[in-house]
Amino acid sequence: MRNDHRENNRLRPITIEKNYISHPEGSVLITVGNTKVICNASIEERVPPFMRGQGKGWIAAEYSMLPRATAERNIRESSKGKVSGRTMEIQRLIGRALRSVVDLDKFGERTVWVDCDVIQADGGTRTASITGAFVAVVLAFGQLLEKKKIKQMPVKEFLAATSVGILADDTAILDLNYEEDSGANVDMNIVMTGSGEFVEIQGTGEEATFTVDQLKTMLMLASEGLEQIFEIQKATIGDLASRVGETIR
Amino acid sequence: MRNDHRENNRLRPITIEKNYISHPEGSVLITVGNTKVICNASIEERVPPFMRGQGKGWIAAEYSMLPRATAERNIRESSKGKVSGRTMEIQRLIGRALRSVVDLDKFGERTVWVDCDVIQADGGTRTASITGAFVAVVLAFGQLLEKKKIKQMPVKEFLAATSVGILADDTAILDLNYEEDSGANVDMNIVMTGSGEFVEIQGTGEEATFTVDQLKTMLMLASEGLEQIFEIQKATIGDLASRVGETIR
Amino acid sequence: MRNDHRENNRLRPITIEKNYISHPEGSVLITVGNTKVICNASIEERVPPFMRGQGKGWIAAEYSMLPRATAERNIRESSKGKVSGRTMEIQRLIGRALRSVVDLDKFGERTVWVDCDVIQADGGTRTASITGAFVAVVLAFGQLLEKKKIKQMPVKEFLAATSVGILADDTAILDLNYEEDSGANVDMNIVMTGSGEFVEIQGTGEEATFTVDQLKTMLMLASEGLEQIFEIQKATIGDLASRVGETIR
Amino acid sequence: MRNDHRENNRLRPITIEKNYISHPEGSVLITVGNTKVICNASIEERVPPFMRGQGKGWIAAEYSMLPRATAERNIRESSKGKVSGRTMEIQRLIGRALRSVVDLDKFGERTVWVDCDVIQADGGTRTASITGAFVAVVLAFGQLLEKKKIKQMPVKEFLAATSVGILADDTAILDLNYEEDSGANVDMNIVMTGSGEFVEIQGTGEEATFTVDQLKTMLMLASEGLEQIFEIQKATIGDLASRVGETIR
Amino acid sequence: MRNDHRENNRLRPITIEKNYISHPEGSVLITVGNTKVICNASIEERVPPFMRGQGKGWIAAEYSMLPRATAERNIRESSKGKVSGRTMEIQRLIGRALRSVVDLDKFGERTVWVDCDVIQADGGTRTASITGAFVAVVLAFGQLLEKKKIKQMPVKEFLAATSVGILADDTAILDLNYEEDSGANVDMNIVMTGSGEFVEIQGTGEEATFTVDQLKTMLMLASEGLEQIFEIQKATIGDLASRVGETIR
Amino acid sequence: MRNDHRENNRLRPITIEKNYISHPEGSVLITVGNTKVICNASIEERVPPFMRGQGKGWIAAEYSMLPRATAERNIRESSKGKVSGRTMEIQRLIGRALRSVVDLDKFGERTVWVDCDVIQADGGTRTASITGAFVAVVLAFGQLLEKKKIKQMPVKEFLAATSVGILADDTAILDLNYEEDSGANVDMNIVMTGSGEFVEIQGTGEEATFTVDQLKTMLMLASEGLEQIFEIQKATIGDLASRVGETIR
Repeated sequence: MRNDHRENNRLRPITIEKNYISHPEGSVLITVGNTKVICNASIEERVPPFMRGQGKGWIAAEYSMLPRATAERNIRESSKGKVSGRTMEIQRLIGRALRSVVDLDKFGERTVWVDCDVIQADGGTRTASITGAFVAVVLAFGQLLEKKKIKQMPVKEFLAATSVGILADDTAILDLNYEEDSGANVDMNIVMTGSGEFVEIQGTGEEATFTVDQLKTMLMLASEGLEQIFEIQKATIGDLASRVGETIR
Repeated sequence: MRNDHRENNRLRPITIEKNYISHPEGSVLITVGNTKVICNASIEERVPPFMRGQGKGWIAAEYSMLPRATAERNIRESSKGKVSGRTMEIQRLIGRALRSVVDLDKFGERTVWVDCDVIQADGGTRTASITGAFVAVVLAFGQLLEKKKIKQMPVKEFLAATSVGILADDTAILDLNYEEDSGANVDMNIVMTGSGEFVEIQGTGEEATFTVDQLKTMLMLASEGLEQIFEIQKATIGDLASRVGETIR
Repeated sequence: MRNDHRENNRLRPITIEKNYISHPEGSVLITVGNTKVICNASIEERVPPFMRGQGKGWIAAEYSMLPRATAERNIRESSKGKVSGRTMEIQRLIGRALRSVVDLDKFGERTVWVDCDVIQADGGTRTASITGAFVAVVLAFGQLLEKKKIKQMPVKEFLAATSVGILADDTAILDLNYEEDSGANVDMNIVMTGSGEFVEIQGTGEEATFTVDQLKTMLMLASEGLEQIFEIQKATIGDLASRVGETIR
Repeated sequence: MRNDHRENNRLRPITIEKNYISHPEGSVLITVGNTKVICNASIEERVPPFMRGQGKGWIAAEYSMLPRATAERNIRESSKGKVSGRTMEIQRLIGRALRSVVDLDKFGERTVWVDCDVIQADGGTRTASITGAFVAVVLAFGQLLEKKKIKQMPVKEFLAATSVGILADDTAILDLNYEEDSGANVDMNIVMTGSGEFVEIQGTGEEATFTVDQLKTMLMLASEGLEQIFEIQKATIGDLASRVGETIR
Repeated sequence: MRNDHRENNRLRPITIEKNYISHPEGSVLITVGNTKVICNASIEERVPPFMRGQGKGWIAAEYSMLPRATAERNIRESSKGKVSGRTMEIQRLIGRALRSVVDLDKFGERTVWVDCDVIQADGGTRTASITGAFVAVVLAFGQLLEKKKIKQMPVKEFLAATSVGILADDTAILDLNYEEDSGANVDMNIVMTGSGEFVEIQGTGEEATFTVDQLKTMLMLASEGLEQIFEIQKATIGDLASRVGETIR
Repeated sequence: MRNDHRENNRLRPITIEKNYISHPEGSVLITVGNTKVICNASIEERVPPFMRGQGKGWIAAEYSMLPRATAERNIRESSKGKVSGRTMEIQRLIGRALRSVVDLDKFGERTVWVDCDVIQADGGTRTASITGAFVAVVLAFGQLLEKKKIKQMPVKEFLAATSVGILADDTAILDLNYEEDSGANVDMNIVMTGSGEFVEIQGTGEEATFTVDQLKTMLMLASEGLEQIFEIQKATIGDLASRVGETIR
């Protein structure tokens, strides 16, 4: 039995609250069990220097945790004067994943800034960030559509992420909470599209290894979980859901 | 008439949601009009080096804004690698104000870390932070009392803050929102105790000046507003309210 | 009796030595008791990016202490690689205060850089900096007038600052030296114009509070002291004194 | 046909030069095609603060590139004053991978510092670093064995890494050089043990996605390549190869 | 004729004002022509970590310029967040030079912090700093002698510095001012002991070279100038001058 | 007898391997005894801001050591986030020395970036860097000549560097290795042109001094050693050697 009485293939309860913060073009509060992340998508009317003059847009992501999102208070990265390796790794992942399902040619020379701020953490903050950020980005593009600044929804496919892992007793489990994650032998984050293709697989055996069969089991578990998450995203987005993919149809 | 139809001596609606985040010893979400700040108080079982061995505690505060708390997205201070002068000024003010109403001798060699994270900004973020942080600190001490780690509530008095200002047409107003603050000739932040004494007065005429009479008017307006805020704090804190001041009675 | 045998309403001896350093457009060494600050005003023929194209000027201030300006040697901020919160707070105050009495529209797209470098500290370094910097700025504008680069003195009013405080025995005193400042319950810095209006009031009860009556007493003491300081500034500036205010007459 | 005329399942030529630099306890120059990395392993007689007093060792890795390892000169990270996200991601990966095959309980409170410095880059620098670093670490432990500071080789298994990818025309290829990597739809780094288990899988579709079948093909290609790399490592290490795994036999 | 009408072998007027700042154990203001440097020597009752437990002292130097010490205002190094290469080079030189004439075994585990702050610059700031710092250090040791914390003056010899150079027309000149320094082909700084031995020679041909004969001429000029500087140092130090060298007599 | 059995006036064996790294326009590996430095010269098609619009080129140098180039591992400067004073001093020296023998007017608005990366250190790394960097720069200009981007070799003269020193027993020696350097009383670096003129002399008595006669002996030793080094440079450069100086003939 898992520490929170879930079955091995069961997700934690997920809610996505739309328009959580008033200023951003797209904003959600995503809750996955006890993990809570504010995901804001901001439209900036220009692209970074390396993208200028190509007529294309860009998506950049930043990730941070409030100092007391965790059981022990962490020192603020702005006080330390530098961003940790873990933070950089996560924000690079979020940006890359979002760019894989957005047609950068379809929203002009604009940058979508995605800010994922974890206000409460209980494992799976990076996957919750991707799942929530996807919705925020769709909402932001929705606002551009409404203002007639773009003609088509540049998002090609749905995108969500979850984690799977293998415990010390070889059980494979879905959607690890913090305590499970700390004790697991293997931890794998899967980012997938609505059509069931992989965008990113990051599997790590910290002081452990895993076999091809274990890999297959984990991928299966993730697929099942992600299908449920896509339904929650669709319900949140409402009418805009039908416009996802219109540029590639 | 003010831009949000308030009377000159009227506060914006204020709510304080208790136990907002689960990990911190004390946590609130304070809402003042459209300004929203998460105030967390964390107990650390040691003091900073300069305080060691004195048998006393310390209170330190940090303040930050989410990048899109504002109408325009701000660059994250952790990305810039340094904290701005404005942030430093505010967090020094919050810490100083809280220390003025807490008996540092009464909670052992512990640090109370106060984190004020603005998730949505519409003027008055520093005064909302002080008002909310006070409640978070009382809640954190409440937890120490419950765990019998301390015997008396070390908080001596209630503490809250608000802003007052003078518009270009010489009108004095209470609790400025962002638009009012941007246009005001004079901006003054007042931190006051429940017994009506000043802890901090910071009055600034940016490219303007003010007279003694204007100062008196502003102090009066602030006093009236703060009395209402103390009531809201008391209602939030509940039974713990009666323990405030017990070390000095 | 005060530790240096002054009456409670007595300033320390103040001297302002004109043209102290040869390169700056305006330069003074101000001495207030044992506090000594070199105040240099430099004219730069452009404004910061956020001001460009508006046809207006800007005034920016920086403040620093020599490592051994104090009884204990301080680590140099350039060695630490960052400027402390205290320094930032002070330099923001100096800049804001000077801008409040200068007509930014009257000296073209120029920046006046004000550098206040404390070479010996005994309390009141920020107020001495403001008082001295005002003179340095007038001298710098004097040089622009002489070179016919501007036609009128852009300074609208005299400006000076001093401190007042309340000791543990409730005595209110004027112009605190370092030892007094360390022991005071309340410390207040007042920046005032030659016409007796406030530019900035910063009153702080570090681990203490103060009443409205105490506030009134302190403001009175400050006013009396500042009138004497304005006389010293006028004597230093000489003929240029009569040109202050010409843009608003 | 590939741009360097290799078959799709063919590695580039690999050489590992032992004892390349004289000071480190373990040192190799690994060459994979035109990619050249100096991998040094240094033994430090203490562990980082978070590991102290546990009687265990630690392995930490750092990765860097000479400015002109690449076709365009890169700005030195020491000049920029901060380490890039890419560098952090890679050095975290190298350290984690090495720790997964080393028994940290078997070499006392020592740190093995692994420095991977790329002197010439043509794709695959992170996988070459892992492959080379493994040999350097074995050599460093070999020196501890020789000096009788430890009794058994703490390395449990062989470890190596390579990359696989999918080109725009859907071809799956092994061991991508820089030009191939830049044009590929999918890029995957595989770290594997000598017994054929995975330590790390990092597959990324930058602006693209991949299916389960493509994943299987890539894993197969990687396995075949890695078997050849293990042989090269064994030949380099010589007699020490037989001691790998002695703590778990 | 030189730009300030000096003969080629003539020093600029030099004055050394003793006890310039009140807090430091040793303090002087040295003036060399229009170059003015405050040199403070502070005694700290401990040594840096790398020196601990050896029963020896240490001398460390820091050098800085006020932003407007120069004709153009320089950005403050604390604002830039890092110390320039030029500053580091100079402070390393000052420290090394002072340590060469002080017996580090003779003043216990103490650090002498030497701060050279240039308040007005007209060439030769590093040599003026060394000359002035030497006096400040002797004064600081004088205070330790007076307080009976040490028994002998740890300074073994007098120490001073000056510059020599070669102009575009091949003339060799002594003690270059800023304008001469900017135009010179060769610039050489010489640090010498009172007994005429070299401590440091740094000769540089920026986009130029020099011969052995030119070197000899420059060394001769420097020697003559330094003899005059030693006399000025002795006159400033007074009675303490006779104690210099007592540990090696 | 010296610790490596050399005569006092004998250089260590020197080899210069041409075209060591493939990407840079000029690249060598220089070996001086056990000191090994990769010197790369990169051509950038623009100059730094302070040089723009003058039609001239620039040469900038950077110097670094691998962490385990030395007997003890050093912390990487990129990890510390700042470049040490020693590194800055060395890279300023290398750049200045190279600029003294190159006609900056003869290669257009280009920057030659010189990177000296020490992979193994045994004393004399800065002089080896200069000697090797000179060859790399000539090779880089050789490539510009071949591509007809410039018409004449902008290098006016050969340039090399070596060290001399005085041991505790007053022996003067040439080309100090690390152990000798650590024990020497005086350490002097000499940079000289092929025509026997000095570019830079840096002589330092760390806690010691030296006489004029000792200076003469050291300069003589250096001259003899440098003549041999020029021959090695010429042999490495081959046909390009005859083009050095063509702009001044």
